[in-house]
Order: sequence, then C-alpha cells, then structure tokens
Amino acid sequence: MAKEKKLVEAITAMDEDFAQWYTDVVKKAELIEYSSVKGCMILRPNGYAIWENIQKVMDAKFKETGVENVAMPMFIPESLLEREKDHVEGFAPEVAWVTHGGNKKLEERLCVRPTSETLFCDFYSNIIQSYRDLPKLYNQWVSVVRWEKSTRPFLRTSEFYWQEGHTAHATADEAEERTVQMLNMYADFCEQYLAIPVVKGQKTEKEKFAGANATYTIEALMHDGKALQSGTSHNFGDGFAKAFDIQYTDKNNKLQYVHQTSWGMSTRIIGAIIMVHGDDSGLVLPPKIAPVQTMIVPIMQKKEGVLEKAEEIRECLSKNYKVKVDDSDKSPGWKFSEQEVQGIPTRIEIGPKDIEKNQAVIVRRDTREKIFVSLDEIESKLSEVLDQMQKDMLERAKKHLEENTHEAGNWDEFTEIIEKQQGFVKAMWCGETECEEAIKDETGATTRCMPFEQEHLGDVCVHCGKPAKKMVLFGKAY
Amino acid sequence: MAKEKKLVEAITAMDEDFAQWYTDVVKKAELIEYSSVKGCMILRPNGYAIWENIQKVMDAKFKETGVENVAMPMFIPESLLEREKDHVEGFAPEVAWVTHGGNKKLEERLCVRPTSETLFCDFYSNIIQSYRDLPKLYNQWVSVVRWEKSTRPFLRTSEFYWQEGHTAHATADEAEERTVQMLNMYADFCEQYLAIPVVKGQKTEKEKFAGANATYTIEALMHDGKALQSGTSHNFGDGFAKAFDIQYTDKNNKLQYVHQTSWGMSTRIIGAIIMVHGDDSGLVLPPKIAPVQTMIVPIMQKKEGVLEKAEEIRECLSKNYKVKVDDSDKSPGWKFSEQEVQGIPTRIEIGPKDIEKNQAVIVRRDTREKIFVSLDEIESKLSEVLDQMQKDMLERAKKHLEENTHEAGNWDEFTEIIEKQQGFVKAMWCGETECEEAIKDETGATTRCMPFEQEHLGDVCVHCGKPAKKMVLFGKAY
Ligand SMILES: [Zn+2]
Ligand SMILES: [Zn+2]
Repeated sequence: MAKEKKLVEAITAMDEDFAQWYTDVVKKAELIEYSSVKGCMILRPNGYAIWENIQKVMDAKFKETGVENVAMPMFIPESLLEREKDHVEGFAPEVAWVTHGGNKKLEERLCVRPTSETLFCDFYSNIIQSYRDLPKLYNQWVSVVRWEKSTRPFLRTSEFYWQEGHTAHATADEAEERTVQMLNMYADFCEQYLAIPVVKGQKTEKEKFAGANATYTIEALMHDGKALQSGTSHNFGDGFAKAFDIQYTDKNNKLQYVHQTSWGMSTRIIGAIIMVHGDDSGLVLPPKIAPVQTMIVPIMQKKEGVLEKAEEIRECLSKNYKVKVDDSDKSPGWKFSEQEVQGIPTRIEIGPKDIEKNQAVIVRRDTREKIFVSLDEIESKLSEVLDQMQKDMLERAKKHLEENTHEAGNWDEFTEIIEKQQGFVKAMWCGETECEEAIKDETGATTRCMPFEQEHLGDVCVHCGKPAKKMVLFGKAY
Repeated sequence: MAKEKKLVEAITAMDEDFAQWYTDVVKKAELIEYSSVKGCMILRPNGYAIWENIQKVMDAKFKETGVENVAMPMFIPESLLEREKDHVEGFAPEVAWVTHGGNKKLEERLCVRPTSETLFCDFYSNIIQSYRDLPKLYNQWVSVVRWEKSTRPFLRTSEFYWQEGHTAHATADEAEERTVQMLNMYADFCEQYLAIPVVKGQKTEKEKFAGANATYTIEALMHDGKALQSGTSHNFGDGFAKAFDIQYTDKNNKLQYVHQTSWGMSTRIIGAIIMVHGDDSGLVLPPKIAPVQTMIVPIMQKKEGVLEKAEEIRECLSKNYKVKVDDSDKSPGWKFSEQEVQGIPTRIEIGPKDIEKNQAVIVRRDTREKIFVSLDEIESKLSEVLDQMQKDMLERAKKHLEENTHEAGNWDEFTEIIEKQQGFVKAMWCGETECEEAIKDETGATTRCMPFEQEHLGDVCVHCGKPAKKMVLFGKAY
C-alpha cells in the first residue's frame, strides 16, 4: 500500500523543475536508493541491469581490439600516487585515505583509487622488458572513489562505477591511434546503442586530465541544454613512463620509454540516458540497452485463457527479446504506469477481446503510439517497432542537439545566447587559459571541447579580440 | 630474453615443496603479479579470465533462480557495522579504516567492506514494507577487504574478489530452503565445471559465520591433503532483521521480521583449481572453465601453407571452442611449455608432414596423450577429447578424495592419521566447543564440517569419550 501511494504521486514536470524531475525519475524508476554512506548510492536492480548491458556491449568491443581485463588493487600507497606531479596535484585533494588496517596504524597511508594510472604504471614497470611485451592493452571494470561535497545520482557521487583502460605502446603514433580509436568507440556506442549523439573533440589545457598530454572527450547535450562529458580518452605520451621508469629494449637493443593511454566511461552515462530521453512520465530506455524490452500486460487476467496466452507470447518472444509478463494483482492502469516510469520501451496489451480477434496491442513508450498486430506476426512486428523506436530516439536527440547548438560571432551574441537560450555555443577562441577563465567567470559557461570538426567562424577570439586559434564548443555543464 | 630465462627455470616439484610449487605455478602461469600494496595482488589477464568464466556461469545460474544484481557502497559507517554484536566482533579486528575524505577528517570513520550484511540490512529496512516486497534476492560481484598479516595468492589476500548474495524472505522455511539451494549450486558448479568434488556439511558453532544461525560449507581436498573451504551459505534467521528492524506487514496486516541468508564464493576457488589439478609442469585447467581450450601450435611455421592451415583450423574450431594460434617466433618446444604451464587443456600440433597426411595431433594437457586425427573430423574429435578430459579430471579428483578420507575410531587412530597420512578424517564428536579446541591444539586439525551425509562410526567422541552427537570431518586447512 505504501508503495502504491508513492508511485501515484506525479513526477515533477520537467519544465517546472528539471533537477527535481531528474531526482524523481531516478528514485521512482527504482534505479538508485540513497545509502547511509554520505555521497554513495545503491544501484538497485533496475539501475545495475542497465550498467550490466553497457558492460556486455563495451567489453565485447574492447576485446575485439585485443584488450584484456585485469584487476588491480583498490588501494594506492601515498608514495606511489605522488610519483607523477600533475597527477597527484589533480587527485590528492579528493581522495579517501585509509590510515588503519585491523587495529594497527599503517606505516604509510593508502588512498582508495580515484583512478588507477599509478597502479598500472607500477605494474607495467615490472612486466615490460622488451618490444615483444608490447603493446599492453589492459582494462578493468571497477568502482573508484572521489570525495565529493555535493552529490547527484549517477552524475556526481563519491563512489562510482566505470571501466578504465590503460595501454602501453612502443611508439607515440601507436598511442595516439589507440587514444582516438577508443574515443571513436565511445562515440559510436553512444549513438548506436544509447541513441545519444555526441560532439567529439579535444579538451583545452585547463580542462585536460591531470598528467595527460592530450585529453579527448565526447560531449552530449541534455534535455535542459546542459552539457554532459560522457567519455574521455587520454594520451599520456611518455610522461608517466619517465616518472615510473617504464622502459623496453627495442629491436636494436636500445632502451626506450613506452607511450601510454587511458580511457574511461562511467555510470555517469546512465544520467545521460535519463536526461536525453526521459519525459514527464519517467524514464525512456533505448531498446538496445533496455534490461526489459517489452512488458506484456494481460487485461482481465482472471478470465480463462488470458494468462496462458500472455505466457505463450512471452515464450515466443523471449527467444530474441528480453520480455516479462506482469501477472501481479495490480490493475492494468497501474501496470502501465510502472512500465512507463521504468522506461521499458514497449508494452504488449492482451485481453479477452484481443484473443478473440487473434491480436494484441503494442504500445511504444516514447510516442505512446498503439500498434494493433495479429498474433501470427507479433515477433516480426515487435522487431520493427523496437528498431524504429531506436532510430526515432536518435533522430530526436540529434534534432535537439542541432537546434540547441548556436554560433556566437561576438561577445554580445555569446552572452545573450548563454543567458536567454540553452545549449552549446560555438565560438572562436584565442587559446589563452586566462581568457577561458574569464569567460567562465562572466557567464558560467566552460569550454566543453575543441571539436575535431573545426569551422572558421571568424578571425578573432569571441571574448578578448586577440587572433583566434580554435573554434571551441562552450556550454554550461553537469 | 629475460622472459625466456624465467620460464625455462623449472617449477619446483610438488613433492619437494608444495608451497613453493604453488607460488611458482601462480607466477609462471601469469595468473598473478604482486603489487606495491601489501597483501593485495594484481589479477593478470590469465587469472582474471578464469574468474570471468566463473562469473559468467555462476551469474547465469543465480539469475535462473530469480536473483538480481545490485551494487552497494564499498564503505560501511562504523555505527552501522556495530549494529549486530556477533558480526562486529567477528569482523572489526580485520577491517581497513578510512578516516579522511579529501583533506578533511571524517566525522565518523568508515570501514572498507569486509562483507556487506550490514549494508544490505540497512537497504532492506528501507525498501521492504509489505509481504509483496518479498522475497528480495540480491547479489553483487565486488571485492572486499580483510586485513591479513600473512598472505598467499588467491588463498589469503587483503583484498579479494567474490560474489555475495543476500536474500530476505517472509518465512524461516523459505530462508532455509534458499541457504541449502545455494550451497548445492556451489557444490554442483565445483563438480560440473571445475571438476572438483566437495563434501557438503554444516560448520560447528565455533566455525560458523559471525552473526549466522547456521553456516553450510563445501570443503574440497587439495593435492597435498589439506582442506580448502570453497563456498559458504549462511542462514541468519531473524537475528539481523531484529538488529536492523527489517519488518514487513503480512497478509493479515501483522508486522513480522524477515528471515535472511547470505552466500559467497570467491577467487579462492582459483587456488583450489590450481591445487587439485596442477602438476609439476604447471596449471591444468578443466576444459569447461579454461579461457583458452586449445592452442594451435604450427610446426615449421615458415614453410608455405602451415600458418594458413593453422588459421583455417582455428576458424573452423572457434565457432564452438575458445581457440588461439601461437604464431609467435618462439620455437615449438617453447610454445609447448608455455601452453603447459598455463594449463591450456589441449594443444593441436600441425606441421608440413601432418598437412600432407591431412591430419593433426591433439595433445591432452593432463595425460599428455597424443591423438592423431584427420582434419576432416577435427571438430568432433576435439569435442570428444575435451569432454573426456573434463570427466577424467573429476574422476581423478574423486579418487584422490576417497583415498585420502579416513575414519578414526579412537584417539590413537586419529593422531596417527593426522601425523602420518594426509587428508580428511571422519570421526565422532561430542559437540562441545572446548573439545573441538583441544583437538585443534593437540593436532592442528580443525572441524571442516558436520557432513550432511552422516555415518554412525561409534557412540562416543573420538577425543573426550563423552556421548557422540555428530560425525565430523576433520582436516588441516588453508
Ligand atoms: Zn581570448
Ligand atoms: Zn569430545
């Protein structure tokens, strides 16, 4: 009873309060529960199942390119974290420190990994000797900890789940190739599986990863016009190799430093799925990543033959689709709203009248379109509907991205767009960090990236008027 | 070169020094690398791939019984850990404490989870209200931390990987049923996939899990005659429910406490695979769990057509098997010894003479038997060989278990078996903890379990002569 009450309360309308809408959806779709540990969330079955599907797809793609999985310790000794200067400066302020093991004070404190570059470097320095040992293409699926003051489910939590790939190569070219390859893999995954279009580009000096030579990023646009960094890939050059002494003998028997990369995508991406596709009724999951693709809802299920028919349909569809039957004793209306809030892409309604006519009704979650289908062709029809829905979701997201990506030719235009409209702003920039910081201070907008696809929008920096070096994508970001 | 040297050094013979043999195998099969973090190991690709295969099989089996995966925080606030008395006494002495987050001292220290009963209980107390919410059948695949003074790869490390299932039920019967169901699942998995026979039974009061009413265990016998606890399943009754106030309203609108279970299997089981099946040449992996099932080794691979044929065979076999070709520039002898040390169940040798005869040689890792097969039937032959090997491995392990399980009718027999022989000893026991402790002090043997399959070996306790209550399986254990 308590539970029924909770669901009927409407989700806050998106336009009214987007942040509250987000929190409502996360909670009511049962993706997450708050825990007793400040800043840490519990991924409930509905939330974790999305992550499992992401893992399954990404892991197979990684392995196709030769990547192997490993498991590194969750702790990093303080002295190891300190080996690379930029890196420790970037992460030390936000790590959790273990000071006692059992009842004894540790000789050296350990931090809980905020990321594992230092551990992989230490490992690589032990196992790489010769060019025959290269490349090393390792990845791990773990959680990491970064102490956050304010937290939001999926977007910013003290502990979050991710994969972190760490590779070591003989040459700079090979490292650069891998960095770009993984960024493209993330971008393709977002488009093809999550129906989220992204802008690919390079982070500025100010925004790049602590210790990297170059950071590449994919940036997605949320429904409220804010940007979400959705995956990053870093080229470290030989900086870490020098700090950790990772050398190999090449074919000419000369000692060389390796060139390294790292790349990661996290449970943050689930926040993107919610904020790109969700609506006022709740979550809308892209069919390709949905843990349940269709929920069969029997109508008047106590009538003879209804549940049997629902089960028959489930069995037929479950060969190729992830299907469930909701045969609980709740009302059909209740079941519909549960299916909707959870974002299950389709539902199939089947009642005594449908059975008489040898039909069923497929209802799309995104458009609410009702499609009457003969039971004889329900499998092929469901396939069509899911494919179409996946395509339509990407098209709508692309349209939203295009309509909310603006160009600013001068500072007045820039400030007006940031204040009055929402979304990305493309503008020319001088390349100076001070100018970048001034833009942020004055407008709240940050450089999301320098898109790989550069355009020439003018000759001078939109803010300071100095000669322009790059076209930059600006935006307010999560 | 450095690497080649390392491998040719022979693995220490098992009979000479079993502990050193174990360490050599773990290192030379590249399962594990030591890390800079005391007591924590790195699972290298060969080691982690075994764990991934275990995960894949077990996870599917769990889900078939309705279990869903979740992800709980890795931290437990001290006050939460202290809620259940027996539990905190059991675990507090061996946990790692986080005292600082970022640069600030935490108001309350957090321990890194040694196990997650308290977190699940806290979660369940929030989400369980009605009988409709039951059962909850949750599991997570994570690492946990227990600060260990002395460590051994897989067997005892400060951080280790496992799954921990935590369930909540309306009735005591249902909880008991689930506890036994999961123990049986572990036992079947060990037999059917790992070719490891186990003894199922109940732990004594002294040996049971901190906070449990009853702990069931599967105990396996290693090659050196020592026991390894390989999986446990606990029935908590309503003890945790009372400590954490987890109540539900039943169908009569009455408040009731839930009944809970937890069950886990860890990377320890990889230690069992090594110590049950390994030999003086290295690891021997059961075909059903091996990351690579057959390694194709081309002979005289520079001769025209050899590598092409090897690749052709790989392609044909890879539809149903996990196959690799070793086309590196090492010698065939070298490749053989690598395949052997890594425990790859079979290798296929193919050279110019074989190609002429339209044949290849399958070599079994366990028996070294060479099987000449026509290339036309290589797929079905490989299938037969792998099936037979899996069966033979289980049979050999069963024989070893039977031959090394003894009965002791009196204390003289007991001490003589423990001193002069190896393995398990079945004996009658009075049920007193003091007697159990005396047996341990005098012989080093502990109660492994009270087997579900009880036998009547006599009327009095083997040690103290009081009336016997149970037949117990004793042994020295890892
Ligand atoms: Zn400027
Ligand atoms: Zn006794």
